[in-house]
Amino acid sequence: MMTSPTALAAADLTAYLHQSIPLTEAMALTLSAYDAQGLRLKLPLRPNRNDKGCAFGGSLASAMTLAGWSLASLTVAQAQLEAEVFIATSSLSYRLPVWSDCEARARLAEGETWERALRGLRQRGRGRIQLQADILLPDGRIAASMLGSYALLSPGQASKD
Amino acid sequence: MMTSPTALAAADLTAYLHQSIPLTEAMALTLSAYDAQGLRLKLPLRPNRNDKGCAFGGSLASAMTLAGWSLASLTVAQAQLEAEVFIATSSLSYRLPVWSDCEARARLAEGETWERALRGLRQRGRGRIQLQADILLPDGRIAASMLGSYALLSPGQASKD
Repeated sequence: MMTSPTALAAADLTAYLHQSIPLTEAMALTLSAYDAQGLRLKLPLRPNRNDKGCAFGGSLASAMTLAGWSLASLTVAQAQLEAEVFIATSSLSYRLPVWSDCEARARLAEGETWERALRGLRQRGRGRIQLQADILLPDGRIAASMLGSYALLSPGQASKD
Repeated sequence: MMTSPTALAAADLTAYLHQSIPLTEAMALTLSAYDAQGLRLKLPLRPNRNDKGCAFGGSLASAMTLAGWSLASLTVAQAQLEAEVFIATSSLSYRLPVWSDCEARARLAEGETWERALRGLRQRGRGRIQLQADILLPDGRIAASMLGSYALLSPGQASKD
């Protein structure tokens, strides 16, 4: 059974992703943490390897995009609001090859707050939030980074697009 | 049997991707065109859908990243050179939802030429090339775009990283 994004809770996130975005199951992405520090998805190397045997850049991009999407979706649900969350723009930087399992962590970009985005959603049916996502190696080094801008659209607004 | 990137030819590209990057098989990505206009990969909607039923942003990002990677790899092979091709940075813009199968097209970014990158690879073992990738809808509209910078490293250089 499919959980609606409105009622999305952290405990259901992995199942929701696997059921509704088939590629996340192929990637074997799972939620590993969700707290005040942000949200982390675990990305195992094996299904995400490239021709060199390290992690495929598209998998890293997907994992960072999804970490941000998940953080925004859970935050909207916690605020008792409804929104479709879309990635609008992103800038990525790949710094180190990833030869092991890793995590994609998402948190608010510097200087951002949820208040403005949620107020826009409440008052005008649309908000925008900038999130910072990173690929963390087991030793804590950052292997890749993404700054992503996400659109939050109330269901009525989304159907106009 | 695995084709080595050195000898990569367009006719083998789909098989090479599926064998060496498992996620491309899950995405059912296939080469649809490779000519003077650039390179196109076909991305079917069904395995790449999201929770809204349209294409998952991570699949679009992966398809554009791979279209550029494929174009760079085939161009290096045609020049009788050897290189590992890595995505270094990318900027993406998602403009329209994708409700159908689509194509990811890669070509040289405006003002770029292959000559400088291939000369760098030949003389110093490393080159850099900017590629423009787009997601094309069946009616020709562009649904998403990526400007990507790819590093070309001769095998000796790559092993130093």
